[in-house]
Amino acid sequence: MRSFNRENFFPIKNKINTDFLSTLLGEGLLSSKISNNFEIFDISSLSIIRNNSLLFLENELNIKNIESKNLHVISNSKENLKYYENISIVKNLNTSYNEILNYLFFHDDNKNFPDEFSLVNGSYISKYANIDKSSEIGKNCFISRGVEIGKNCVIKNNVVIKNSIISNNVIISDSTSIGTTGFGFDFKTRGSQHLNPQLGIVIIDDGVHLGARCSIDRAKIDFTLIGENSMVDNMVHIGHNCVIGKNACIAAQTGISGSVTIGQNVTIGGQVGFAGHIIIGDNVIIAAKSGVTKNIKDNSVVAGFPATDMKEWKKNIIRQKKYGH
Amino acid sequence: MRSFNRENFFPIKNKINTDFLSTLLGEGLLSSKISNNFEIFDISSLSIIRNNSLLFLENELNIKNIESKNLHVISNSKENLKYYENISIVKNLNTSYNEILNYLFFHDDNKNFPDEFSLVNGSYISKYANIDKSSEIGKNCFISRGVEIGKNCVIKNNVVIKNSIISNNVIISDSTSIGTTGFGFDFKTRGSQHLNPQLGIVIIDDGVHLGARCSIDRAKIDFTLIGENSMVDNMVHIGHNCVIGKNACIAAQTGISGSVTIGQNVTIGGQVGFAGHIIIGDNVIIAAKSGVTKNIKDNSVVAGFPATDMKEWKKNIIRQKKYGH
Amino acid sequence: MRSFNRENFFPIKNKINTDFLSTLLGEGLLSSKISNNFEIFDISSLSIIRNNSLLFLENELNIKNIESKNLHVISNSKENLKYYENISIVKNLNTSYNEILNYLFFHDDNKNFPDEFSLVNGSYISKYANIDKSSEIGKNCFISRGVEIGKNCVIKNNVVIKNSIISNNVIISDSTSIGTTGFGFDFKTRGSQHLNPQLGIVIIDDGVHLGARCSIDRAKIDFTLIGENSMVDNMVHIGHNCVIGKNACIAAQTGISGSVTIGQNVTIGGQVGFAGHIIIGDNVIIAAKSGVTKNIKDNSVVAGFPATDMKEWKKNIIRQKKYGH
Repeated sequence: MRSFNRENFFPIKNKINTDFLSTLLGEGLLSSKISNNFEIFDISSLSIIRNNSLLFLENELNIKNIESKNLHVISNSKENLKYYENISIVKNLNTSYNEILNYLFFHDDNKNFPDEFSLVNGSYISKYANIDKSSEIGKNCFISRGVEIGKNCVIKNNVVIKNSIISNNVIISDSTSIGTTGFGFDFKTRGSQHLNPQLGIVIIDDGVHLGARCSIDRAKIDFTLIGENSMVDNMVHIGHNCVIGKNACIAAQTGISGSVTIGQNVTIGGQVGFAGHIIIGDNVIIAAKSGVTKNIKDNSVVAGFPATDMKEWKKNIIRQKKYGH
Repeated sequence: MRSFNRENFFPIKNKINTDFLSTLLGEGLLSSKISNNFEIFDISSLSIIRNNSLLFLENELNIKNIESKNLHVISNSKENLKYYENISIVKNLNTSYNEILNYLFFHDDNKNFPDEFSLVNGSYISKYANIDKSSEIGKNCFISRGVEIGKNCVIKNNVVIKNSIISNNVIISDSTSIGTTGFGFDFKTRGSQHLNPQLGIVIIDDGVHLGARCSIDRAKIDFTLIGENSMVDNMVHIGHNCVIGKNACIAAQTGISGSVTIGQNVTIGGQVGFAGHIIIGDNVIIAAKSGVTKNIKDNSVVAGFPATDMKEWKKNIIRQKKYGH
Repeated sequence: MRSFNRENFFPIKNKINTDFLSTLLGEGLLSSKISNNFEIFDISSLSIIRNNSLLFLENELNIKNIESKNLHVISNSKENLKYYENISIVKNLNTSYNEILNYLFFHDDNKNFPDEFSLVNGSYISKYANIDKSSEIGKNCFISRGVEIGKNCVIKNNVVIKNSIISNNVIISDSTSIGTTGFGFDFKTRGSQHLNPQLGIVIIDDGVHLGARCSIDRAKIDFTLIGENSMVDNMVHIGHNCVIGKNACIAAQTGISGSVTIGQNVTIGGQVGFAGHIIIGDNVIIAAKSGVTKNIKDNSVVAGFPATDMKEWKKNIIRQKKYGH
């Protein structure tokens, strides 16, 4: 698993210790168990458990063999009290998530995000970004704190890069935005003030080509990943937490919902849509305009909406033409 | 109905009185009736009749109880002569619309739009915009004359805002464009010189969150509205004159054609398309990739293209799979 | 056929003569025939054969009556040796294409593209661009070398224009990108370093209106063309080598794959997709959300995916509703 230092991107706004959580949660706290008091400066996900972090757990789940030091669980399920030594049970997990993380971290959906810029050759570059000298950046770009850009990259014009680690030999075409806010909130409490803080990043691997006018949202906690040598056409939207393998080819105007995992060597036509939280295998080919609603096995060739085996889809179309139904 | 001062956004280019209309219309004028001569500095729509304005009427229509002062009707239907005290009958309503309004108003699809900018912290801000000090604006933005931005808003980077009134607590993510020109013209006379002047605005209510890379076109005469606490994902296109109610949730790459009215608490999946001039009720749920072609009643759940009841749509798919047709 | 001077946009990086090709191709060269040695500074396509150029030929093809002077053919088909006086046979045509053209030309997908900019009224304009004084350009734009802009154009804000010739009376709305890199590479060798150099341009004819947030990719060798008085709505993607006739009307979020040819007076709804390399006749109407997979004859009205005669499509939908299949 890739690691990154969250604080490089999202500075700590207020340091907290676990014993302060009860004050912070107020009436939202139902019960808690604190075996040892420690400082919190990170968040965990079910994929990556981190030291000195909070883990928000929706359902009863006993995670065994946690090697990370100093984990405090926050859950809305009392059943979890028996599994963890440090845990708070809350009324509303989403509300607590937002309250605690907005208190703990600065991020760009709130005001007063701390950053400082220099106007370098026509673009605003954060003093806290780290860009290799061999890489080139065009005009009217915006590159904010924590961003790393490796060697021999070509970043064109009017590009926005935030909360991202970009490897070597990456080309990012004009007017693309990377590391933007994921579309994450509880459907029951809508409005800009109820957005879940999006505190993950985007990782772009070696040799990736991103077309013009794309958007790639940063992850909620971990990272959105575009694998080595992947080719992305214009106006492609890639949602938060997506992990796309090596050598992907994604044609224009395709949209990938949040938390989709895509294998290696996948070819995706234009205007394809993906439901969230599905898994696409290696070497899959997806025809243009497909709507992919379920997991797809390795080496499949699919088309249509809902996407199904391409031969079936073609048969269906020929039949409709021939027999009128 | 919301009101706004059109001249804040679209300054008067040439003052005209109703008795000058005959000169302006030239051979395009067939007949006219002028009961009283007055100054014209506004336009009316069938939704909002304004003082000292022109109303362009395509069909025979007797609007009763007009309370606004000084209305001059321009119509291609001679039948309307009997209903109004101040009216001009013209050969081609679209041509006259363009001629008169391009003569009367400055707008940004013609040259020489009068505005003055300061470079404020990396963004070009009109001296005639009104932005609350508590709101933050990123780099490489463009905010033009008349724009109002309320309290505690976060406007990110490379954002273009024109002809818009933005309320409080609004978040606008990177590279979004608001108040751009609506796609309005007579299909018979194409070309940039035949665009209908788009002289309305965009209103964004409290607590709205707009994702990255969206476009929201301003209205032709009145306003395009995004209701309170609505959440809009990335790359969503919202056409001119759309009115979207409170608490909407609109996923990525959806496109809403002009003059669509959407109720409250509506949830719309990604890559959905809407035909123009339709009405969607409250609490409607529209599945991803749907094509909505007709009005939809309150509390409906629809899917497919043309969008239909979701249960029917699912049945259809299961049947096709099972029986091959 | 339109002509343009490639070197205005893509300066020569290294001058080469045909006798140097063997050195450049190295082990990739299988055999060659050089009847006369000449300087190479251009590329040809099957549509336009140019003087002192290379023509890359995939299959056996005997082009007769070539009037251009000094053509050197590069092919992976030995059969072509018998047809041409100057020809190199190579192992891998795509690899040779990339090697030679990256050696020969500067383009913006490689580093060190030579250009110089002035900040003019808030936008970065190349000293090697040629913009008529009667045209207006907004803020935060980027206009690079070789670009020509004719009379009375309105270029709005945050617009990127590269490798393009723009005629008179053209309106380009906010945040549109023109002349960006086409999505061209061999599917077998993915990654940013294997992009085919895109060395063509975009031509925008008189009176075109481009909406906000569009992308129009430049051609690989010749030009992408938007014909006179065409109207393009927001977020439309037009791929490399497309040729769109006069008076097109293209609604929002439509995507046109590479090398599509579209006739005159065509009307295209929103969210339509086109397969690559197809031909659409004059006066065609294509309903919203259609997926066009094949050539379409003049005066057709089509809908659906795959797009078919609209009456058939409607019948099908009515039948499905009535009989459940």
